[in-house]
Amino acid sequence: MAPVYKLHYFHLAGLGEPIRYMLHYGGVPFEDIRIGAKEWPEHKKKMPLGTMPVLEVDGVMYPQSRAICRFLAGRVGLAGADDEECLRIDVAVETFNDLRAAVADWFYDANPDTKAAKLEPLLDKTLPFYLGKLEAMVKANGGHLVNGKLTWADVYLCAPMTWFDAMLRRRVLEGYPALEALRRRVDALPGVAEYVAGRQSAEKLCPRFIGP
Amino acid sequence: MAPVYKLHYFHLAGLGEPIRYMLHYGGVPFEDIRIGAKEWPEHKKKMPLGTMPVLEVDGVMYPQSRAICRFLAGRVGLAGADDEECLRIDVAVETFNDLRAAVADWFYDANPDTKAAKLEPLLDKTLPFYLGKLEAMVKANGGHLVNGKLTWADVYLCAPMTWFDAMLRRRVLEGYPALEALRRRVDALPGVAEYVAGRQSAEKLCPRFIGP
Repeated sequence: MAPVYKLHYFHLAGLGEPIRYMLHYGGVPFEDIRIGAKEWPEHKKKMPLGTMPVLEVDGVMYPQSRAICRFLAGRVGLAGADDEECLRIDVAVETFNDLRAAVADWFYDANPDTKAAKLEPLLDKTLPFYLGKLEAMVKANGGHLVNGKLTWADVYLCAPMTWFDAMLRRRVLEGYPALEALRRRVDALPGVAEYVAGRQSAEKLCPRFIGP
Repeated sequence: MAPVYKLHYFHLAGLGEPIRYMLHYGGVPFEDIRIGAKEWPEHKKKMPLGTMPVLEVDGVMYPQSRAICRFLAGRVGLAGADDEECLRIDVAVETFNDLRAAVADWFYDANPDTKAAKLEPLLDKTLPFYLGKLEAMVKANGGHLVNGKLTWADVYLCAPMTWFDAMLRRRVLEGYPALEALRRRVDALPGVAEYVAGRQSAEKLCPRFIGP
């Protein structure tokens, strides 16, 4: 019997979005549970680490987005073919994650003073540094992050980009043509394209989004 | 021909230490390159992301510690046996890494005011929360983080503990008997025990360490 998958995440295209993309890409049926702000305090208590995303597989709850993504990648054919390819995928994923963590560190900073102080180095140094490294990887690897083929690293980077654009109030990948092309290709993947076409816009999902 | 491994890292038991442990455990010859503070600015330029650890495999440089650890785990027999076990290992690793990131966010904060403000929540909330979760995992899994067997998750948590103790100026695992026992077992592994016996103390390695 096929496993029963349930994804617990916010109604956002953040850390849970690559999980949704992979399940749609793999044609894997799943329950896309979206927790609103009002339900979250109660729902949080049921999550293993008080965080989401959580993937429920036959009733077992797994937290940690990259752990979940790597697991699903194997199940939908987006993992590496050998240990060196897996290593290169993991390097790309962790590199993008370093950038994601820096953006989140700024965006979710509750102190207005330290938050304001973080924006300039984020925009002028951190973003160009990491996006430059990732752009170079895609250029050197035939339009993908690793070995000229679609892997879960591509999905992990591209799926949350609507949320990145919303947080940073700009087209984050603008000026990085290889990454922009990769994002278009990932959004057009079979299964993913249908999901993306029906997805709510980031403006609706992120109340703090004002527009460019 | 066996691959040629070189590890580039600081003369510290931080993110590079689980890599050293695994190579010693596997009996894998490697060059343990330790970069001092004076050499670092020049050496940094040669590192793919300007960070260490970097594992060089036959001349190819791979950054990102967890990516490196997962790769080596496969080569030395510390990876999961199936995709669900790999998922559980990754969950444990990412959970410890969340704690590590919180400690690093405090320890390396260059602003004395924000650094001081971070210490109390770190000691009173973050450390007990994560160590409590990890202690419960080890208790529920026969003395290991996953499935009652030694995996790279155990090594990833235990290897940097001398550095954790030094940063936080206390025995971090005190009060968590299952984690303390796991640490002793990991430090006593064949190959690792010989390395640990010859290792310099954290006091010598960390100039900011004053003692308990």
